[in-house]
Amino acid sequence: MVEVVTTVAEVRERVAKERAAGHAIGFVPTMGALHDGHLTLIRRAREECGYVVVSVFVNPTQFAPGTDCERYPRDLAGDVEKAGKAGADLVFAPSVEEMYPPGDSTFVEVTGQLVECLCGPHRPGHFRGVTTVCARLFNIVLPNKAFFGEKDYQQYLVIRRMARDLRLPLEIVPVPTVREPDGLAMSSRNAYLSPEERKAATVLSRGLFATRDWFASGEGDASALIAVARELIATEPLVKLQYLELRDAETLEELRRVKRRAVLALAAFVGSARLVDNVVMEAAGPVALGGDDNGVIVSAFDTPSSPVS
Amino acid sequence: MVEVVTTVAEVRERVAKERAAGHAIGFVPTMGALHDGHLTLIRRAREECGYVVVSVFVNPTQFAPGTDCERYPRDLAGDVEKAGKAGADLVFAPSVEEMYPPGDSTFVEVTGQLVECLCGPHRPGHFRGVTTVCARLFNIVLPNKAFFGEKDYQQYLVIRRMARDLRLPLEIVPVPTVREPDGLAMSSRNAYLSPEERKAATVLSRGLFATRDWFASGEGDASALIAVARELIATEPLVKLQYLELRDAETLEELRRVKRRAVLALAAFVGSARLVDNVVMEAAGPVALGGDDNGVIVSAFDTPSSPVS
Repeated sequence: MVEVVTTVAEVRERVAKERAAGHAIGFVPTMGALHDGHLTLIRRAREECGYVVVSVFVNPTQFAPGTDCERYPRDLAGDVEKAGKAGADLVFAPSVEEMYPPGDSTFVEVTGQLVECLCGPHRPGHFRGVTTVCARLFNIVLPNKAFFGEKDYQQYLVIRRMARDLRLPLEIVPVPTVREPDGLAMSSRNAYLSPEERKAATVLSRGLFATRDWFASGEGDASALIAVARELIATEPLVKLQYLELRDAETLEELRRVKRRAVLALAAFVGSARLVDNVVMEAAGPVALGGDDNGVIVSAFDTPSSPVS
Repeated sequence: MVEVVTTVAEVRERVAKERAAGHAIGFVPTMGALHDGHLTLIRRAREECGYVVVSVFVNPTQFAPGTDCERYPRDLAGDVEKAGKAGADLVFAPSVEEMYPPGDSTFVEVTGQLVECLCGPHRPGHFRGVTTVCARLFNIVLPNKAFFGEKDYQQYLVIRRMARDLRLPLEIVPVPTVREPDGLAMSSRNAYLSPEERKAATVLSRGLFATRDWFASGEGDASALIAVARELIATEPLVKLQYLELRDAETLEELRRVKRRAVLALAAFVGSARLVDNVVMEAAGPVALGGDDNGVIVSAFDTPSSPVS
């Protein structure tokens, strides 16, 4: 039976008891509005850990003023039921004041390439808000493993960087993107879509998959690969690309050719919803730098990356 | 017998063993060049904790370019001997590369009043460097208690703020300033002083004590209190004040009158050495806001503040 608590003290008390009993602690931070993507994270935590904590907190510091913080979908009762069915032991649903008490003034910030591209320039302060809240949540829950969806691929890299740099004593586990049957990546923001927009939004994953398939057929040139997705997505007038970029899957440096693992990532507006998606493409075996990239195979979005130690 | 290690993995292995054996972990972060101030921190940790870790690391991220990072005094062998005699079990002396491996790019930053006054404006990036390294060290050592000297009073407040905000599972314990017999606050930077400068530097604590005594005699007006120290310090031509300010001892807000606890803090150049010092003054009993501050008593620099939980 899943338990719901709202204070840091309650989480610490529950988790300390479970840790003392020898259970590994798994943690899935969420902003609620749980969908099958979140539930997959929870199920994965359930498989790997003896005690599973899910946080539900719409974190104001990661939203820019005037964006969708207020209208972000909220349904705590539904979230608790879903999380419990997926295997959560504890739901932590703090108030904003519990997470950011008066006087709170400490930020955690990853700098450099990982935050200066893709969503970074379009969402100033966003990743600082994400790392700031995750550092707090990690220190409250003190998990052995924390699970993040690859749908927010850049977020996963930023959190992993923070955990490595700050020497947080936990493992960041990436979990493959979960998609609707027609390919749309699951997202709480899909709820913003009208039926017509919902249908149009499928062009995003179709574009990414088209590039992935073209890569699998032997194309390694970045411009050519990006053009495949861009041209397909451009056929859908309801979809406005914000960015579509092919970058190194570890460093997010821009690529001219795919040498090793690369991520093709996009953000797009569909109606009022801003959606993100990506596919990871991986060259097979040792590839000589500057050499012929023919013969690559695709290890797409549904291949888990190595977990961080 | 004190043990010396240089890697994060070694610290974690030693500390995990001690924690499993039921020992509380005490931690004293230092930049080495240990003096009686540091040794007092170590002795205090020894009294309160079953296992005591001392780090010796001259942290480059807290020095501005062109300041004294390179010439900061270093004597690891001497430090290890002193730390061991004072009760340390483990000295962690990492390289810069061990603390900041290639690719490291995460900062921890306290913002607002605590860093915008006193040393803050004079040392851009200093406190960001301090919190950035302490967050790493805390996550490496995972202490139950970390001990900081009140000589660096603003640093203590900033670290305490970070620990509270990030919900670090540890207690920050302030320890009273240790002074030479003539009153000079102990500091590794006192080693920079010529004999003549060393003698002149005593005017700093004499000035602070004169204000403290004037406060004890009933003066509550900030300008009058500051003037006492300022005028005395001005009599010493070898000493150049950088700042001398009276501020609330918790928030560092500027004060017109001392109502509750206040800190009189200064930084001064004596020759090439930049020295800091402070005294904390405390009004006795309940003091009516805006009321008469007569009847105050002094609870000076040698009264420990309440530890943070």
